[in-house]
Amino acid sequence: MKSALSQRTINRLTQYYTILRDYSKKEIQNITSSQISQLLDIDETQVRKDIKSINCKGKCKVGYSVSELKGIIEDVLDYKVIKKAFVIGAGNLGVALSKYSKFSEFGLQIECLFDADKNKIGNTIDGKEIFDIKLLKQKVQKSGINIAILTTPNKVAQEVCDFLVDCGIKYIWNFAPSILIVPKSVKVWHENLIGSFIQFCAVENIT
Amino acid sequence: MKSALSQRTINRLTQYYTILRDYSKKEIQNITSSQISQLLDIDETQVRKDIKSINCKGKCKVGYSVSELKGIIEDVLDYKVIKKAFVIGAGNLGVALSKYSKFSEFGLQIECLFDADKNKIGNTIDGKEIFDIKLLKQKVQKSGINIAILTTPNKVAQEVCDFLVDCGIKYIWNFAPSILIVPKSVKVWHENLIGSFIQFCAVENIT
Repeated sequence: MKSALSQRTINRLTQYYTILRDYSKKEIQNITSSQISQLLDIDETQVRKDIKSINCKGKCKVGYSVSELKGIIEDVLDYKVIKKAFVIGAGNLGVALSKYSKFSEFGLQIECLFDADKNKIGNTIDGKEIFDIKLLKQKVQKSGINIAILTTPNKVAQEVCDFLVDCGIKYIWNFAPSILIVPKSVKVWHENLIGSFIQFCAVENIT
Repeated sequence: MKSALSQRTINRLTQYYTILRDYSKKEIQNITSSQISQLLDIDETQVRKDIKSINCKGKCKVGYSVSELKGIIEDVLDYKVIKKAFVIGAGNLGVALSKYSKFSEFGLQIECLFDADKNKIGNTIDGKEIFDIKLLKQKVQKSGINIAILTTPNKVAQEVCDFLVDCGIKYIWNFAPSILIVPKSVKVWHENLIGSFIQFCAVENIT
């Protein structure tokens, strides 16, 4: 089902989920589209449309059941399906992403990190070991993990990318600010942090 | 003009710009929609449509002038208008964002960082000083900077957010994985890293 949803809908559902998770922790049982709308500064009609699109029904004056809506979003977006990944590069960004608690809640499990720096190899980040990048091929073959989160500096990104492909990585989530060239069989998702900020500026007219 | 463009168009234009910057450095004079399409794995018709929407004209069999298209995107998306911001939290993510070279190329200039940790205060990250968070109000008043990039842990995010609002911050780019409650006069952009990954999984059918 999720592939039928637009990227923007997926993005909004993920944000609704963050609220539902908080409400669930606070043991609040119901939530209205108006509450979601106000918290996220998203049009209420849009909120209702999104929730309707995943077949969740609210009750008049009561709103949606927090646990039901949370469960439906989990199912629709496959949060319960664990996706394991390697982080390539144990610099500040690689370490920050490895510590990012939200990932595991959404089904993304970072298995370990890889770096070429001997001073970093052998250390652990929140229980995840930093391995020598030379061991990557072996780890891919042993674990079957084929998702890599690339956080190396721009200068070496393409070189490291070529190495990842050679090691059997099939999906690369690229945080390096450069466009990577890969064979057709490998898919790259260029994370675009600055694009996100530019959108913010555009929406809010920040100049 | 940029507010008339959709978020997805802005996102794609930012990616085209990354390629154009590389081509420009390599002193390549022309680029075709087919080249952009292949590098980004985006439909060629879409590329042509986007470029047409910002009034850049290509030449048959030659393509677009790299410098012209680069200049038009810079103008349309205001990359030449410097937007100064503070980073709140000098942990791994705050430091990574402060070092992220791409930001400055796109007009986002990180002025300095703030933290409450005495061991961090006084240090510099790529020439940007880490100040005591207690000095924020004074720095906002003196500089007029009203954009904050929030990278604190989830647990303290709302508390720190309230403090930012009290200090006169008007725009918050929130990397903490929680929804912040702010007055109407303050705008929050919830960065949604996991949403981006979920989109990747959806598009590529990663399960």
